[in-house]
Amino acid sequence: MLGTMLYGPRDVRCEEVPEPKILHPTDAVIRLAASCICGSDLWPFRGLNEIGSPMAMGHEYCGIVEEIGSAVTSVRPGQFVVGSFCISDNTCPHCRFGFQSSCQQREFMTGAQAPLARVPLADGTLVATPELPDDDLIPSLLATSDVLGTGWYAADAGRVQPGSTVAVVGDGAVGLMGVLAAKQMGAGRIIAMSRHKTRQDLALEFGATDIVSERGDQGVARVKKLTGNVGADSVLECVGTNESMTQAIQCARPGAMIGYVGVPHGVELDGQSLFFAQVGMLGGPAPVRRFLPHLIDLVLQRKINPGRVFDQILPLTDVAEGYRAMDERRAIKTMLRV
Amino acid sequence: MLGTMLYGPRDVRCEEVPEPKILHPTDAVIRLAASCICGSDLWPFRGLNEIGSPMAMGHEYCGIVEEIGSAVTSVRPGQFVVGSFCISDNTCPHCRFGFQSSCQQREFMTGAQAPLARVPLADGTLVATPELPDDDLIPSLLATSDVLGTGWYAADAGRVQPGSTVAVVGDGAVGLMGVLAAKQMGAGRIIAMSRHKTRQDLALEFGATDIVSERGDQGVARVKKLTGNVGADSVLECVGTNESMTQAIQCARPGAMIGYVGVPHGVELDGQSLFFAQVGMLGGPAPVRRFLPHLIDLVLQRKINPGRVFDQILPLTDVAEGYRAMDERRAIKTMLRV
Repeated sequence: MLGTMLYGPRDVRCEEVPEPKILHPTDAVIRLAASCICGSDLWPFRGLNEIGSPMAMGHEYCGIVEEIGSAVTSVRPGQFVVGSFCISDNTCPHCRFGFQSSCQQREFMTGAQAPLARVPLADGTLVATPELPDDDLIPSLLATSDVLGTGWYAADAGRVQPGSTVAVVGDGAVGLMGVLAAKQMGAGRIIAMSRHKTRQDLALEFGATDIVSERGDQGVARVKKLTGNVGADSVLECVGTNESMTQAIQCARPGAMIGYVGVPHGVELDGQSLFFAQVGMLGGPAPVRRFLPHLIDLVLQRKINPGRVFDQILPLTDVAEGYRAMDERRAIKTMLRV
Repeated sequence: MLGTMLYGPRDVRCEEVPEPKILHPTDAVIRLAASCICGSDLWPFRGLNEIGSPMAMGHEYCGIVEEIGSAVTSVRPGQFVVGSFCISDNTCPHCRFGFQSSCQQREFMTGAQAPLARVPLADGTLVATPELPDDDLIPSLLATSDVLGTGWYAADAGRVQPGSTVAVVGDGAVGLMGVLAAKQMGAGRIIAMSRHKTRQDLALEFGATDIVSERGDQGVARVKKLTGNVGADSVLECVGTNESMTQAIQCARPGAMIGYVGVPHGVELDGQSLFFAQVGMLGGPAPVRRFLPHLIDLVLQRKINPGRVFDQILPLTDVAEGYRAMDERRAIKTMLRV
């Protein structure tokens, strides 16, 4: 079959790869309904994460179970399933506390930018839909696998409450999903920080009430002004740079929580500044598995349409163009027909 | 009157100072029932905080209202009052959110190691008891002003829940109060990290279920072992060094909250490590005012006895010996007869 391999900085290829097989009795193999490219795929694509041998890319997935290992009991061939980008057993203590992304058996999914993928720990990782979903729901179901689940976690970790004021730092796909999540959680005011018209428009469609196009100190000043010089109750940090984290901290009121989901690159925090800012923080890889049943349900009931975040659809053979388009911010998020 | 002035590193003096006066219509002057020395007083005493001119020391206080400014309406002369070390108006947005220690009009109390003290923003800051308390309750009421309120905030920010597992880093007075707070909040297991027999004994008296005398990696390993290799649900960081913060982070399970109340000195946090540890953090100067009514009530009902933390009582004239005793860890916390 065709699959996506990263050979080095900016060298991503669609090429012939072996079909995945059941390796462990707890595995499943699924036939993907669609796949996509994640903002986090751009870190190694840009050469910011070291890669040794060629990497099989792709960790967002949904589709039909093709085959299961002998120990798998909760899904069966023919079912439509969604899973998290974090593989988890869903039974260890961390999973039971709702932090499946720190599962004691955690693995990160790979190789899902392809028509078939192996999912380890299938019982813990996969969630089946009650019946086969309509085709037009595929993009939204695919989004629950990571990008929506991650934006949702940012809002959950940031403790968004009904009526509260939320600032979202970052207008990438995750930030936009953070806006959608905050809206679903009943936030009264959602300030999206974005400089790009198409992203601003999508943020407004997802529920943003205010757009702040300034960044850095000027962006902070605008958020302060919009909140009566108080700051936001919750801030969702969806970028991962030192600048974006600083901006997030400064936009938060004392006692606020920052949910941070952008993988930090070069972020250093001074303990004393954080202490006197009196801002709370919780981040990490999103425990998407905790939210999946609820998110899938919202999609199936057509209450949310996170699939709108895909503004480019390409065949798998053009995956390299998808990476380039996202890298150059020509696309918010690229879906792949597999 | 006599008061306590810090002239420079290790140079603290009890000397004649002017009696405090009402300076603003919102002030009160109180006659202290007792005063005490705070662990945070040791930072400037040790020369770790720069001081310019001589500083009037002391920020923990309770006593009888002597005089009030013309705008004060909620307390009257003759009443017994307790106030926080953070002066707050208790009406600004930050106060209404329960973060009075970040009040928009915040000041830090000074000059309370003396028989009389001026309390700014008396209406917002002071809480009166229903009647004059029994003399034997004075130490515990004094403790609510900072050391208990701060330990309580650590437990609150660390989101201690009924039945949860709590680790307390630091066996100073605040750490011991953190143990007491966790017990009151219903923690099922309270692991006190302490190397000193007298402090271990007090921790056990306040409700600790386990004592870990190791520090650093060995201390972390012991906490992990005690928690079935999971880590604590809440960690109270009550020291403020880089070592203690690192220990706190490593003792926490993914999804845990660290309530940190030791003023950070030299604490640097790496964003990516914190992200993958998936540990939440909230700290800062404790919003004691939020907790005061409840803590005063617990003391008056004799449900808690935080005054036990004072293991040295000295006359004000011996205040310098009190600083030395705490600095050398010969005393946990020194009360001053004023």
